[in-house]
Amino acid sequence: MSKASMFRAALEEGSLLTAMAAHSPLGARLVEEAGFDAIWASGFELSAAMGVPDASIVTMTEMLETTRRMGEATSIPIVADIDTGFGNAVNVHYAVRRYREAGAAVVVMEDKSFPKDTSLREGGRQELLRLEEFQGKLAAAMAAAGSSGPVVVARVEALIAGLGQDEAIRRAEAYAEAGADMILIHSKAKTRDEIEAFVARWEGRRPLVVVPTAYPSFDEARARSSGKIKLLIYGNHGLRAAVAAMREVFQQIRADGAAAGVEGRLAPVKEVMALQGDAAMRELEQRFLR
Amino acid sequence: MSKASMFRAALEEGSLLTAMAAHSPLGARLVEEAGFDAIWASGFELSAAMGVPDASIVTMTEMLETTRRMGEATSIPIVADIDTGFGNAVNVHYAVRRYREAGAAVVVMEDKSFPKDTSLREGGRQELLRLEEFQGKLAAAMAAAGSSGPVVVARVEALIAGLGQDEAIRRAEAYAEAGADMILIHSKAKTRDEIEAFVARWEGRRPLVVVPTAYPSFDEARARSSGKIKLLIYGNHGLRAAVAAMREVFQQIRADGAAAGVEGRLAPVKEVMALQGDAAMRELEQRFLR
Amino acid sequence: MSKASMFRAALEEGSLLTAMAAHSPLGARLVEEAGFDAIWASGFELSAAMGVPDASIVTMTEMLETTRRMGEATSIPIVADIDTGFGNAVNVHYAVRRYREAGAAVVVMEDKSFPKDTSLREGGRQELLRLEEFQGKLAAAMAAAGSSGPVVVARVEALIAGLGQDEAIRRAEAYAEAGADMILIHSKAKTRDEIEAFVARWEGRRPLVVVPTAYPSFDEARARSSGKIKLLIYGNHGLRAAVAAMREVFQQIRADGAAAGVEGRLAPVKEVMALQGDAAMRELEQRFLR
Amino acid sequence: MSKASMFRAALEEGSLLTAMAAHSPLGARLVEEAGFDAIWASGFELSAAMGVPDASIVTMTEMLETTRRMGEATSIPIVADIDTGFGNAVNVHYAVRRYREAGAAVVVMEDKSFPKDTSLREGGRQELLRLEEFQGKLAAAMAAAGSSGPVVVARVEALIAGLGQDEAIRRAEAYAEAGADMILIHSKAKTRDEIEAFVARWEGRRPLVVVPTAYPSFDEARARSSGKIKLLIYGNHGLRAAVAAMREVFQQIRADGAAAGVEGRLAPVKEVMALQGDAAMRELEQRFLR
Repeated sequence: MSKASMFRAALEEGSLLTAMAAHSPLGARLVEEAGFDAIWASGFELSAAMGVPDASIVTMTEMLETTRRMGEATSIPIVADIDTGFGNAVNVHYAVRRYREAGAAVVVMEDKSFPKDTSLREGGRQELLRLEEFQGKLAAAMAAAGSSGPVVVARVEALIAGLGQDEAIRRAEAYAEAGADMILIHSKAKTRDEIEAFVARWEGRRPLVVVPTAYPSFDEARARSSGKIKLLIYGNHGLRAAVAAMREVFQQIRADGAAAGVEGRLAPVKEVMALQGDAAMRELEQRFLR
Repeated sequence: MSKASMFRAALEEGSLLTAMAAHSPLGARLVEEAGFDAIWASGFELSAAMGVPDASIVTMTEMLETTRRMGEATSIPIVADIDTGFGNAVNVHYAVRRYREAGAAVVVMEDKSFPKDTSLREGGRQELLRLEEFQGKLAAAMAAAGSSGPVVVARVEALIAGLGQDEAIRRAEAYAEAGADMILIHSKAKTRDEIEAFVARWEGRRPLVVVPTAYPSFDEARARSSGKIKLLIYGNHGLRAAVAAMREVFQQIRADGAAAGVEGRLAPVKEVMALQGDAAMRELEQRFLR
Repeated sequence: MSKASMFRAALEEGSLLTAMAAHSPLGARLVEEAGFDAIWASGFELSAAMGVPDASIVTMTEMLETTRRMGEATSIPIVADIDTGFGNAVNVHYAVRRYREAGAAVVVMEDKSFPKDTSLREGGRQELLRLEEFQGKLAAAMAAAGSSGPVVVARVEALIAGLGQDEAIRRAEAYAEAGADMILIHSKAKTRDEIEAFVARWEGRRPLVVVPTAYPSFDEARARSSGKIKLLIYGNHGLRAAVAAMREVFQQIRADGAAAGVEGRLAPVKEVMALQGDAAMRELEQRFLR
Repeated sequence: MSKASMFRAALEEGSLLTAMAAHSPLGARLVEEAGFDAIWASGFELSAAMGVPDASIVTMTEMLETTRRMGEATSIPIVADIDTGFGNAVNVHYAVRRYREAGAAVVVMEDKSFPKDTSLREGGRQELLRLEEFQGKLAAAMAAAGSSGPVVVARVEALIAGLGQDEAIRRAEAYAEAGADMILIHSKAKTRDEIEAFVARWEGRRPLVVVPTAYPSFDEARARSSGKIKLLIYGNHGLRAAVAAMREVFQQIRADGAAAGVEGRLAPVKEVMALQGDAAMRELEQRFLR
């Protein structure tokens, strides 16, 4: 069974699915190990890992390759962030065909204009595409995905762009009408009010997706009890945990002129090797090295 | 001034240089921020990030590209791990030419046979190349590096392979004779005795490099006081810190069904954006968007 | 139906299949257009296109990516050249898993030691692996391919290495015993005698593959009438045709100081656009640009 | 001396420079061998080689990597096609910084909107950017190039878009004012009248670049005698020669069921090996294999 089929089946079982962001196959393994349902191949995390802003600077090649490698390293579905789809509807069709080949279970495309700016940035450029143009891009994505390919999620940035609930609802409905399988409603409000207002108004034509990074008080229980949200994405927690840990460890080693003092904060080499598949390699060595 | 020249100049100033491992441009920025002298483009860290054993499974393309991108994202020298040189002396020549083009300040090549196994693994395959063959590979590396290209470090794995101090010294001397700029002496002993014994016997024909991962009690002060060690590499502390942090944060979020409880362990989104170069991008926007 | 299954089905129909080499998706389209049964993702052609010797200098990343992209651009099976398998049996397992994900229908692995040298080179390094070691690599390839993955072809280089018919037969039998699906017997003799002698002696435990580059008088009719050969690979004709044509056209333009004189030797821009999928893109534009 | 400096020096010597398109390191070697002054890293040729339309479907990663590899394989300057600069002025700055690192001697950026359509296509989408916006992109490119980096060429698509000579002149002057080093004036007219009319009107504030693909009667002598044109680019002749040759050879082999009949049309294997650097590799083997 393909991972797209796995994801569709899990959706239909009715419970809330959760995805955690990763930016490397190793991170993806940790996501799977922790028991999340899916891996969010986050454009923000990948951009950050590459040391550049999340503003259409990493290329599709880099995003696609990371998505593919995370999928090859794990057994749960990959939810692929495809940003604005890398251009117009024609580009979207070519892109989604390649994500399908790369085994993506879900593709999430946002309705901002290319080049995008990251949604959480203060004072960022948040220009939306004409509604009809984005409908065309969704239709192209769905045509490329086909019935066995990735689930297509339309990401509504109207709240991010400050256009208000009416526009957010209008767009979400138009995207559902254009055929999107799910609607991701994004918000950068510091509290959960904005997202709850949207969810309350949504009539449920399609399941919703939320990314409660700015408003962490919106938790899984609240998402589940809404009855309308089927996927909750943790957007960048792994990367931010890694940054904090690396920064602190580096600073302490610098201060100490030695690494002995940080050992307790590090995963043992042996555990890292286990994550690298050491046991599987030992088995390959025994079976095949002659 | 090229980064290779920067590194040579720093070496000649006489003090101990330190390098910290990274596996992404973001990690490289954190290494620079913390004040290390150089970035160790570690094959072990990159293999781990890709979710595969450190056993010649990641390709030169992947290692080279990561090295290049880390260099483009930072202003301090990159010390590039080139494993066994990706084949014989001919392969080494082609490889080092490409690392030179990619801006590597230093290349470190080990005397194990291809495909290598990671040095720290218990029961790993630790076969050394014939001494003369490795001398040829060193000569090829130096020819490709030229006078303005990367510093060439010969990594001696004789202690790792259990061949003893005499063999380690014999090889180190032979590699110095073949022209290597520096000698990296590697050990996986849990204490610092083995490395100190080697350093004591080394007559100082070339500066030494150490990687005290297994024996963290060998600190910068000890390295400096030896008078023979010029570069100390912290081999994999960033990755291991990141793994521990991601694992704990993921587990807590799973247990809580919410992210609110881990916020204190995460770098703020704003700090991550700063590492991505947000300020530089804002300046570009102001100067050039019309 | 996967391309591996397509290829297996075609094999069982009993007729001779033909594959033509390509080194780009465009070349692969021309192979399909001409009516060959499969595309040979040739390491020699790709190395040449990259401007380097066919001696394990291009990396697996480069070979795999070209294989994948040629497969995504065409609808016939890809026969992937995996050289020596990029290391030992462990490396082979990792590599074949990735080729399977990339949609390769067939993988061809040769019994030379790594780094290889190109078979047709005069005075080249042609060292074979120990027979048992290569059997282990074949077993690893088959385990990674699984029942639905690529067909595994063992390429025998004993005649190339000057070891004679007995050794060639001994190895071919040993590789069949280890489970290889097909045996490629390679020769660089200028006449077809050597290959015919091998074919005559082969008892047919597995179907044979031939690559009659050095001895073009061994044609499809002869292969078919042998009753033992099921795949004939044209090894590098597209690349060599392209080199001759580009060289001549470049020289004439240089001599003329103008391009008008070569127009008759060029494919019209319109035909190139057709090969790029212009018609499909026009359809996408009409359907999805709004 | 960097290749950018080489190119600037050649420009100032005053004669007409010529560049021929290539899409692989091998093609680039043939361009150098034939005696052209520079290699045109053509987006059209690369798109075609990848089997996709020249419509912003290949990514910057793919274009940059091909540019880099062609530069590493040759000793003459690379003139890099950067299409529309891969987004807005911010994207341009990031891109040109990477092209500078990759050793590009010249970057050519066109004033169409992203995603572009290929200029020669009938009925293609040919929308130009606002003039001021493109000036900002040019300024960003120049800032990223710096004084030692690539020459920046502004490519005017006003004639391609059917906007007439006045608009073409207006834009060319505005781009010169914004600081572009050279102006490429593009036309798809079948005769040379349109380009000659532009050249006659151009007051020579910056040297011109032409790409006489559609109107091959505009030859080097005419370009030279204009006194205003300093670079003539042959846009896609290598690719079109290769396509015609591969197509014919493939068809004949299919018809013959044999390759013997096409041998006369192929470059000998030995000549291909020479282009791969066989002599250099033999020397490496003799010097360094022990």
